[in-house]
Amino acid sequence: GLAAPAIAQNKRELKMVTAWPKNFPGMGVGAERLAKRITEATDGQLSVRVFAAGELVPPFEIFDAVSSGTAEMYHGAEYYWPGKSPAFNFFSAVPFGLTAAENNAWIYHGGGQELWDELSAKFNVKAMLVGNTGVQMGGWFNREINTLEDLKGLKMRIPGLGGEVLRRLGASTLSLPGGEIYPALQSGAIDATEWVGPWNDLAFGFHKIAKFYYYPGFHEPGTSFSVGFNKGAWEGFTPAQRQILQNAAAAENDYMLAEFNARNGAALKTLVNEHKVQLRKFSDDVMKEIGRVSGETIAELAAGNEDVKKVYDSFIDFRANAKEWANISENAYFDSRNLDYKYTK
Amino acid sequence: GLAAPAIAQNKRELKMVTAWPKNFPGMGVGAERLAKRITEATDGQLSVRVFAAGELVPPFEIFDAVSSGTAEMYHGAEYYWPGKSPAFNFFSAVPFGLTAAENNAWIYHGGGQELWDELSAKFNVKAMLVGNTGVQMGGWFNREINTLEDLKGLKMRIPGLGGEVLRRLGASTLSLPGGEIYPALQSGAIDATEWVGPWNDLAFGFHKIAKFYYYPGFHEPGTSFSVGFNKGAWEGFTPAQRQILQNAAAAENDYMLAEFNARNGAALKTLVNEHKVQLRKFSDDVMKEIGRVSGETIAELAAGNEDVKKVYDSFIDFRANAKEWANISENAYFDSRNLDYKYTK
Repeated sequence: GLAAPAIAQNKRELKMVTAWPKNFPGMGVGAERLAKRITEATDGQLSVRVFAAGELVPPFEIFDAVSSGTAEMYHGAEYYWPGKSPAFNFFSAVPFGLTAAENNAWIYHGGGQELWDELSAKFNVKAMLVGNTGVQMGGWFNREINTLEDLKGLKMRIPGLGGEVLRRLGASTLSLPGGEIYPALQSGAIDATEWVGPWNDLAFGFHKIAKFYYYPGFHEPGTSFSVGFNKGAWEGFTPAQRQILQNAAAAENDYMLAEFNARNGAALKTLVNEHKVQLRKFSDDVMKEIGRVSGETIAELAAGNEDVKKVYDSFIDFRANAKEWANISENAYFDSRNLDYKYTK
Repeated sequence: GLAAPAIAQNKRELKMVTAWPKNFPGMGVGAERLAKRITEATDGQLSVRVFAAGELVPPFEIFDAVSSGTAEMYHGAEYYWPGKSPAFNFFSAVPFGLTAAENNAWIYHGGGQELWDELSAKFNVKAMLVGNTGVQMGGWFNREINTLEDLKGLKMRIPGLGGEVLRRLGASTLSLPGGEIYPALQSGAIDATEWVGPWNDLAFGFHKIAKFYYYPGFHEPGTSFSVGFNKGAWEGFTPAQRQILQNAAAAENDYMLAEFNARNGAALKTLVNEHKVQLRKFSDDVMKEIGRVSGETIAELAAGNEDVKKVYDSFIDFRANAKEWANISENAYFDSRNLDYKYTK
C-alpha cells in the first residue's frame, strides 16, 4: 500500500450522478446515504459528491457520463438504458420476475453478478446492487379493471417492459417524468398511472384524483437500483477502498428496501383509514394473461440477442427454483399468519 | 483523527467469538465473511480473528465474554440469552412474528434499533443485525401431524419460544446441540426435529431418517443473527471505524439472507426430486391454534416485565402494519405469480 503520508494527501472527490431529484424519498435519500457511508468510512479519503438529476447530466445520461469518465459513479436503475442492451432490464425489474430477496439471491449467489459484470464491462462500467423498492403497487386507476376487455384503450403511464406488456393487451401506454404525471391524470389525458408504492404515492397525492388503487405490481415485483463505477476508476482504487465501496453498496441495498417496507406499511394505513382509498386486487383472469404476455415479451427479447439470451437463461432457471422455495417459505407463512386467531392481548 | 504514522502503528486485533462450528454453512461462513469485510476495509488496521464455538468460550457464553471484555465482538443470535432478558427474543425470532424483510424494516426504520441499544447497553454491549435465515422449515417428523391431537406427546427437538408454544399444546420439547440431533432422531429418542431449512437440512441428512418435511416454520419466520461489540471497545473506535463496522454488518445482513434463499431453492429441488422427500403443509386448524398460543406466549413474557413490554408494544404495532402491507405486496404477488400460465418459451 501507499505510505501513510501519501494516503493523507490523496483525498479525492468522486462525482456521483443520479437519476433522482434532490432528497427524493427512497432513491434520492438512499444516494445521499451511500455517499455518507463511503465518505465517512474512508475518513474523507474518498469524498462522494452527489449530483441530483440534471445538475451535471440529465437523468438518463448518467450511464454514459460514467462510461466516458465524466463522473466516477452513477446511482440509478439499469432498466433506464435498454438502448445499450435490453439485457440490462434483468438487473432492475422484470414483469412477473423475481422479488427483492430473490433478486439479491440471484445476483449475489446465483451467478447474476458475473453476468452483470460481463455486460457492464462492454460499456466500461462496474455495477452493483444499491437498493430496492420491494413489490410495487399496480397503480392508480380512474375506472375499475375487471376483465382483459377493460385494458383495451386504457391510457396509462407505465414505462419499460410493463408498458410493453400492457400495450400487447391493447392499452395505450406511455412514459412521463414524475412531475408531469399528476396533471395528466387530473385532466384525464391519462386514465391510470403506476408510480411506486404507498409511501411515494401518498406524498404525490394520487389519492386525491384517482379512485382505485390496484395491486399487486406485477410489472415491478422488486425493482433494484444500482451504483455503477467507471471501470478505470474502479480498478484504480486500492483493495481496501474497493472493499469499503462494496460494503457500503450492499449495506445500502439492505437499508433502502427496509425503508420502503417500513414506510409503505405506515402509508398504506393512512391511505386506507384516513383517505378512504379503495384497494383493488387484479383478478386472477387478468393476472394470468398478463403473466403469459410477460413471459412472451422477455422470451422475445432473448431470441436473437446473445447478450440477452445468456442472462435470460440464468434468470429463468433461478426463477423456477425461487418460485418453489417461496411457495413453501414466505408464501406459506403469510397464508398461515393470516388465519383467524387472536395474537395480541 | 490520529496522525498518519500513528494509524500505521495502531494495528489492532479484534477477537470475535461465535456460536457456530468452524465454516458452518450460513452462519459460520457469514462470520468469516464479516471478519474479511472489516479486515480488508481497514487494510488490516482492525484485524478480526474468528473463534468457532468453544474455541475461546462455549457458544452460549459469547455474550458474557463480550460484556466483560474478554472478547471485543460476538457473532450469534439474541435468543441465545433469554436468561439476561426475555426481551432479547424479539431481536432474533418470534413465533408468528416478522419475516426477515419486515424485521429489517422494524430494526432499521421502525424504532427497533433504539430499543435494542437501550436493552444491550444494560449489559455493556452494542449490537446490530448481521444476517438472517429467512423463513425456516417446520421440521422433520416421523409421523404425520394432521390435528392438534397429533402434537400431544410428540417428542420434538425445538428450542426457544417455539418449543414453549408446542409444550403448551402437549408436546414434549427439548433443546439439543446440533451434533446430537441426528442420532436422537435415528434411535427414536425423539419423533421430530426442526433445524433450519433445505440447505442446512440436506447437509445434515435428515431425509435419510425422517419421512415428512413440514412447512412453514411458524416458530422462526425470519431468524436474525447479530454482531455485538463490547460497549467500551465500540466507543473507543474512531467515527470512520464505526462506519466501516456498521457498513460491514449491514452488508453481511443482506448477503447472508441472499445465500440462504439461493441455496434453499436449489436444495429443495434436490430433496424433492432426488431424495423423494414428502413435503407437508401444516393444516390451517393446527396453524390457527399455534398462532393463538404464540401470541399468548409472548404477551405473557411482556406482562410484568417493563423491558419486555416496551419492546413488545413496538413489535406488535409494527407487525400489524407489516401484515397488511405484506398482504397487498409480496403475498398478493406470490399468489398471482403462481397462477397457471406459460412463462418460459
